[in-house]
Amino acid sequence: MNASLRTQSLTVQRSLWRALDADAQARTLQRPAQTVAAQTRRTVAALIDEVRSGGLEALRAITARLDGAAPASFEVGQAEFAAAEAAIDPALKQAMVEAAARIEAFHRAGIAQPYAVETAPGVVCERIIRPIARVGLYVPAGSAPLPSTALMLGVPARLAGCRQVVLCTPPRKDGSADPAVLVAARLTGVSRVFVLGGAQAIAAMAYGAGPVPACDKLFGPGNAYVTEAKQQVAQNGAAAIDMPAGPSEVLVIADAGANAAFVAADLLSQAEHGPDSQVLLLSDDAGLLDRVEAELAAQLAALPRADIARQALSASRLVQVDSLDEAFAISNAYAPEHLILALRDARMWLAKVEAAGSVFLGDYTPEALGDYCSGTNHVLPTSGAARAYSGVSVASFQNFVSVQAASAAGILAIGPSAVTLATAESLEAHANAVRLRLQEAGR
Amino acid sequence: MNASLRTQSLTVQRSLWRALDADAQARTLQRPAQTVAAQTRRTVAALIDEVRSGGLEALRAITARLDGAAPASFEVGQAEFAAAEAAIDPALKQAMVEAAARIEAFHRAGIAQPYAVETAPGVVCERIIRPIARVGLYVPAGSAPLPSTALMLGVPARLAGCRQVVLCTPPRKDGSADPAVLVAARLTGVSRVFVLGGAQAIAAMAYGAGPVPACDKLFGPGNAYVTEAKQQVAQNGAAAIDMPAGPSEVLVIADAGANAAFVAADLLSQAEHGPDSQVLLLSDDAGLLDRVEAELAAQLAALPRADIARQALSASRLVQVDSLDEAFAISNAYAPEHLILALRDARMWLAKVEAAGSVFLGDYTPEALGDYCSGTNHVLPTSGAARAYSGVSVASFQNFVSVQAASAAGILAIGPSAVTLATAESLEAHANAVRLRLQEAGR
Repeated sequence: MNASLRTQSLTVQRSLWRALDADAQARTLQRPAQTVAAQTRRTVAALIDEVRSGGLEALRAITARLDGAAPASFEVGQAEFAAAEAAIDPALKQAMVEAAARIEAFHRAGIAQPYAVETAPGVVCERIIRPIARVGLYVPAGSAPLPSTALMLGVPARLAGCRQVVLCTPPRKDGSADPAVLVAARLTGVSRVFVLGGAQAIAAMAYGAGPVPACDKLFGPGNAYVTEAKQQVAQNGAAAIDMPAGPSEVLVIADAGANAAFVAADLLSQAEHGPDSQVLLLSDDAGLLDRVEAELAAQLAALPRADIARQALSASRLVQVDSLDEAFAISNAYAPEHLILALRDARMWLAKVEAAGSVFLGDYTPEALGDYCSGTNHVLPTSGAARAYSGVSVASFQNFVSVQAASAAGILAIGPSAVTLATAESLEAHANAVRLRLQEAGR
Repeated sequence: MNASLRTQSLTVQRSLWRALDADAQARTLQRPAQTVAAQTRRTVAALIDEVRSGGLEALRAITARLDGAAPASFEVGQAEFAAAEAAIDPALKQAMVEAAARIEAFHRAGIAQPYAVETAPGVVCERIIRPIARVGLYVPAGSAPLPSTALMLGVPARLAGCRQVVLCTPPRKDGSADPAVLVAARLTGVSRVFVLGGAQAIAAMAYGAGPVPACDKLFGPGNAYVTEAKQQVAQNGAAAIDMPAGPSEVLVIADAGANAAFVAADLLSQAEHGPDSQVLLLSDDAGLLDRVEAELAAQLAALPRADIARQALSASRLVQVDSLDEAFAISNAYAPEHLILALRDARMWLAKVEAAGSVFLGDYTPEALGDYCSGTNHVLPTSGAARAYSGVSVASFQNFVSVQAASAAGILAIGPSAVTLATAESLEAHANAVRLRLQEAGR
């Protein structure tokens, strides 16, 4: 078989969960290795150093070297925004306007409220909420620019009320930004947009460089260099980040009644993201697995990104389980970014979900709805991070500050406990700070 | 002057903010350098490797080597818990019970609720909330064991409903755990406690080792090795962590009417934590600064931990500002872990606070109340992290999962937008997954 023919054939691994030993089960759930090469770490560290020491000149040199582009100005001006508005298809603009409205409706409803509790007579404890002052959004444009990501980050940033919202997106060869990304940024009220990509964009937003102001927290997906740069600036304490990031992934749980064409289309829409995308299908029905496998081959042939999808599928698995309960146990251990429940009573089964980024219920809820316009966020934890991280929300752009106020009666009520505890911890100055107040309040 | 006399003198730096140039202002707000030595990174990485490969034997060897202790069993058994209950002062037990009740009252009131929004006809988006399944708590016992930290971590973990809550705390020389920490752990319902400290405890909870089970997220303060180990396991994707950690710090804003003895006591109670603790006082009244300086010297003499406090104070600053507005601008730039407002109308000034871990209002609210028993959490962002991180809360122990469900009407309403956006992003399989449903739903 020659290489070309091999590329054309579709290989999907089928297995019966019960027949696998523990090692084989673990291998089935193993993500493609995501170890960052030492070379990538060094390259990114060097880029960050270059940006920190070289400022604007460094941004110019790196962008010429890595993007082959020489933007006249890194910051997008009014004329370019106006040109973008004129350039894009009105239907696309309308779709973005509608998506932004639904994203806003969902995110607004989840905004946390301040509260106050009197925890003892004269002691009031509160939680107040403040926007993170300066945030930086990264919108990738690798194989294609992603205006939807600008909506997913810009809308909650605006709802939080962040004072400074900047957005970086890579330049095209002619040095300009993708018009749809610019329109999306404008829709959400992002204040400043820069045509700057990769690790250099992350470094600029973390430390400030050239025209790019320093930010307190950075958001958004990106390639391996962007991801590594976010990790490094967070590790250095320069800026917080939204979450660790890895390749996109979906896990589908389907029953005998599921529509095989829909399931196959969902698997393929995940697989087309990249060759390292991860796709898992669990079903208690062998016939459904057969039908999905046939549909995969049929639908794949028609896709423009068939080569990418085929590579991703080759690392993916169709797994037959004995019961849907077993499927949920596997899913909870895997903690998928996207979880599709192609089940007859999907809502009933939702109670079984312990860890996932975003869940899609029933036959008419493809993952693509959440990617674009149902209203939920598509910046989600990957690589099992959903066990302990959540997707982006308005809270991701806020600080929650606790506040307490004790009156004289309040310190008399709880001060003695504080003295006892401070003394037990050998922190005598703590005890003294309370005792001085107790003396004064007790007069 | 000989070394002993030098140690005895108290040096506190005074400055007038307006008289400082930009560089001097920046230096005034600079934290003591927190760069992790390359040697510390390597030592911690080696300890993590040793635990991962050596399991129980490695834990035994490291504990003997670094703690000089040989616990009969790392896991604390029923007999040891019972002995701890019998050993501690009933007044201390009572203070812990009361503190736990107030911590619970405040944290419970802040628990986020699930919600659902119909974002389009037939499209329902929801946020559901799940406990993080397996969490690991670290309670340090360096210069003194900190049972209060066990309460601050254990209470919200229980409120979140985490299935597995384990706690590690360093052994004493005889291999046993501090009784007060054990009682505090029991009070909050922690399921398993291990006498294991340092980077080895973090590695064991991140990867699982010997009797210590692997955890999804790790919480709690610690020394430089613990902090570095948390960073490394998070960077490796083994476990999430609560937040980056650094030395404790307080910023006090005081007006002419503030009680100088109280202010000095608060500065000292922060300074006694460690020689690298950071203390800042801002006031618009030179007389208040004079009085505080005199009080510092007087109170310091009486403290058992005077040497530690004196070192911390030598790196600290009393700054005279022209107005309280200027003080708040400085505080927001610094983003202190603890912010004390020793002001006549402290609540009114709260609106000016943009970034801080926890705020203390008025003369009768010393930081020590929040450290122990007002009800707020004392695990807070340090080193300026309060610009983009919040203190520990019940949400720190939860996953927020988004859910969407579209009916046939729902996909007909928003599917066309999704197709338009997917096509604009060249993701044809995404568009296809929606089109297949549109065809079926439109029949």
